[in-house]
Amino acid sequence: MPAVVVLISDFGLRDGYAGILRGVILGIDPAIEVVDLSHEVQPFAVLSAAYILHAAWDYFPQGSVFCAVVDPGVGSSRGACLAQCQGRVLIGPDNGLVSLLARLRGGLETYALDPAALPALASATALPAIASATALPAIASATALPAIASATALPAIASATFHGRDLFAPAAALAASSGPQRVRGPAIEPVLLPEVQPLREGSALKGRVLHIDRFGNCITCLHSSDLGNLDPNRLRLRLRAARARGLKRTYSEVPRGRALALLGSSGFLELALREGSAARRYGIRVGDAAILTQH
Amino acid sequence: MPAVVVLISDFGLRDGYAGILRGVILGIDPAIEVVDLSHEVQPFAVLSAAYILHAAWDYFPQGSVFCAVVDPGVGSSRGACLAQCQGRVLIGPDNGLVSLLARLRGGLETYALDPAALPALASATALPAIASATALPAIASATALPAIASATALPAIASATFHGRDLFAPAAALAASSGPQRVRGPAIEPVLLPEVQPLREGSALKGRVLHIDRFGNCITCLHSSDLGNLDPNRLRLRLRAARARGLKRTYSEVPRGRALALLGSSGFLELALREGSAARRYGIRVGDAAILTQH
Amino acid sequence: MPAVVVLISDFGLRDGYAGILRGVILGIDPAIEVVDLSHEVQPFAVLSAAYILHAAWDYFPQGSVFCAVVDPGVGSSRGACLAQCQGRVLIGPDNGLVSLLARLRGGLETYALDPAALPALASATALPAIASATALPAIASATALPAIASATALPAIASATFHGRDLFAPAAALAASSGPQRVRGPAIEPVLLPEVQPLREGSALKGRVLHIDRFGNCITCLHSSDLGNLDPNRLRLRLRAARARGLKRTYSEVPRGRALALLGSSGFLELALREGSAARRYGIRVGDAAILTQH
Repeated sequence: MPAVVVLISDFGLRDGYAGILRGVILGIDPAIEVVDLSHEVQPFAVLSAAYILHAAWDYFPQGSVFCAVVDPGVGSSRGACLAQCQGRVLIGPDNGLVSLLARLRGGLETYALDPAALPALASATALPAIASATALPAIASATALPAIASATALPAIASATFHGRDLFAPAAALAASSGPQRVRGPAIEPVLLPEVQPLREGSALKGRVLHIDRFGNCITCLHSSDLGNLDPNRLRLRLRAARARGLKRTYSEVPRGRALALLGSSGFLELALREGSAARRYGIRVGDAAILTQH
Repeated sequence: MPAVVVLISDFGLRDGYAGILRGVILGIDPAIEVVDLSHEVQPFAVLSAAYILHAAWDYFPQGSVFCAVVDPGVGSSRGACLAQCQGRVLIGPDNGLVSLLARLRGGLETYALDPAALPALASATALPAIASATALPAIASATALPAIASATALPAIASATFHGRDLFAPAAALAASSGPQRVRGPAIEPVLLPEVQPLREGSALKGRVLHIDRFGNCITCLHSSDLGNLDPNRLRLRLRAARARGLKRTYSEVPRGRALALLGSSGFLELALREGSAARRYGIRVGDAAILTQH
Repeated sequence: MPAVVVLISDFGLRDGYAGILRGVILGIDPAIEVVDLSHEVQPFAVLSAAYILHAAWDYFPQGSVFCAVVDPGVGSSRGACLAQCQGRVLIGPDNGLVSLLARLRGGLETYALDPAALPALASATALPAIASATALPAIASATALPAIASATALPAIASATFHGRDLFAPAAALAASSGPQRVRGPAIEPVLLPEVQPLREGSALKGRVLHIDRFGNCITCLHSSDLGNLDPNRLRLRLRAARARGLKRTYSEVPRGRALALLGSSGFLELALREGSAARRYGIRVGDAAILTQH
C-alpha cells in the first residue's frame, strides 16, 4: 500500500490553494497518493468537516493521513495537532475536528505537532517561501514556514494566512512518508465541540445538525448507536417546522416532496425531502436542534 | 498501461462522497489510476451523464472502466449493469446511461452485474460498513454492501442510499483490476432513453437538448453523422425563441451576443451565444426540442 | 521525480472537459503525475490565471509543466506558446498568462509551440478525434488535432473549440514526458498584460486588482518587492470606497467585519474583510485600481 494523504479544506477550487497543497506534498515525496476528500466545506464550518472526516475514516486504508484545513483561527493562538485513531492519522488545527472521532470511536490519541520536526523539514525540502530567489522581504516573513516554539500553540512568527501550505501539508506528507512519530509532539487534550453530543431531555433525545449536504439533506449528530432499543416505526423527528414519522430505509418510501427521516449512509439520523431540499424548505442550518421522540 | 477507473456522478464536491469512492478503490487495488470526469452532473440528470460519457469515451485508454453514479432510482428496483463498448467498460445503474453509446457506436454489449461477485469482494476487502468495530446495528444494515439476489434488479436488502460506495465503486475497481468478466453476469437488454434519438418530421430533423454546459451552450442529440448531405451554409436551427443560420466553425464568426449553431468538440450540434449564455438568454432546458431545417 | 503536468483552466467541473484532458495525458504517458491546480478560474479571466500560476509556480517540483487553458481567443489567430522560467514550463495560448512570471521572476524564455511536433504526436498516439471508428465527417474536421502551419499563430484549420484537448494537453504531456525541447519552436516575444504593472503617481503607487478569491479577498498586483522602504505602519490602501491603514499580518488583528490590508500568502498586497467578503461589501472587481500611499 502506498503512503496516502487525504485532503479536506474550505479553500474551494477556484484559487489554486488546494492544488498548491498537492505541489508541496509532491515535492516532499512523489510516491504519496493524494486524494481530495473535499475542498468545498462551508467556510470555517468545523462541524461539517468533523462529520465528513468521520464518514470517510473507515473507507481509506490503514495508515492514511488526513490533512484537514478548516481553520477559522488561522493566525490566532489555536494549536496544531496530530490525532491517531484506528490506524489512521489526522493532522490539522486543534479546533474540534476530532470531535466525532472522539465520541464514536475507540482509541483516539491526540498529540501536538512536534516543534522540532518542521524546521528540519523546511531545510530538507527547501520550501520556496523560505529559500527561493524571489524571497519576500522581512515584512512578509510571516508567511514562511513557522518554527513552532510551543508544543500546543503556534507562536507569533507563525501567524501566516496559509498554514495549509506551510505547516499542515508538509507535516502530513512527512507523517505519510516516514510515519506519524516523525512529526508527533507531546500528548494533549484536544478541543472537543459540545454540538456533536446528544442530550437526553426526559424521554426525548436532542441533537444538532452537523452538516447539510448538496441535496439539502440535514445530517444530525444522532447516530444509530444512540437509538438503543427505540422502535424505528414509532420514532418522531422534529427539526424546525419539519416533522417526520418512522424511520425509512430509502427516499422512495415517501411521496415526492414529503419529508422523511432515515439513517444515512454514515449511520447518522438525517432529515431529507424526496427529490427536494429539506434545508431550503424548512430553513434549516448547521447547529439547529433536532428532537427525537417515540410515540 | 495501469488499470484506470473514471468516475462520474452527481454527488457534487462538498460532502466528501466522491473522495470516499476513491478511498474504496484505493483499498481494493492501490495501483488503479482514478480520474474524476465530473461529480457536478446536475442532480439526477441521466441525459447529461450519457452525453459526458459519450464525449469522453474515446479519450481514455482501452481497458478503462467508467463508474457512473447518477441514479435517481437508488433504492428502487432498477438494475445494475456493466456495458462494454470499443474496449472500454461502463459500470452503473441500468437507467439509460448507455443510450448514446448504443446509438452512435458499434458493438455495445450490456450485462447485469454478477450477483455472486460482490459478496466475495466484500469479504476480500473487508469493507468497513460490514466489518468495522463501529458496525451499525441491524436497523442500519441497509447500508451494507448488498448481496445481489437477482441478476437484473437489486433486492430489497440493497435499498441503501449510497450504492456508489457500496456497490458501483467496488465493482469498478474489481473490473479494472481483474477484468470485466470478474463482475459480469448474464447479458441483458439495457434501458435506453428515447430523448437521444433524432426524429425526421417531413424535411426537418428534430432532436432534444442533452446537456447545458458551464458556458450556457445547449448541446443537442443531433450528431454530425445525422446531417448527411445537408448543406452547412443553408441550415437553420430553431430552439425556443433562438434562431441560428448556417453552421459556424468558431464562436468568433459572429458578433458578441449573437446566437450561433456549431458542431461542438464532441460532434453534436449545439446552440451557443458568443461570450454569453444561450441557455439563460432563451430559457432553454435539458429536454427542450431543437428543430433543424434547410432553406 | 515523476513527470508532472499541472492543469489550470476555466472549464469548470460540470462538463467533463477537465477529466478529458487527464484521459488524453494518460493515453500519451501513464507515468505522468497530473495535478488540478484550478478549473474554476472565472471564464476568460487571464489576469486571475496569471496570478494563480505565479502563486503556485514555486510549489511544484522542478521540471513540472503547467498546462493553462484560459483562452478567450480560441479559434481566433492568437498564438500558442511554451514558456520556461526557473526550471518549470508553461504551455498555453499566448495571451498574457506569463505576465506576472515576466514581471517578477528572472530568466523567462518564451517560444512558439513547434508546428512540426504535433502532427507527429497525433499519429503516435492515435488520438481519437482523428483516428477513431466514429470519425466525424469533413464538416467537423475543425475539431481534429490541428497542424500548426505558422510558428506564432494557429492556422484556419485549427479553429476548433477545444484546443485544451486537442493541442495544449497533448503538447504538455509530450513536454513533461520527453522534455520541453520536444515541442518547442522558435523564440517569440510573449503577449504581456499592462494591468500587472504598478505605476508611480507622485508619491502614490497604483496597481490593479488581479484576482478575487473565494473568500472575497481582493488581491492586487502590488507585490512586497514593490514596497521598498515604505513603513508598514504608515501605509494607506484605497480601493473603491474601502480604506485600510497599516499592514496587518493576520485577519485576527482587526475586529470582525473591518477591512484590512495585508501581504497575502503569495506576497501580493490584498484587501480583506475579517470573516466577510471585501469584494461584495465594496463592489470590487478584477481590474479595479488600488492606490497605496504613506502618511
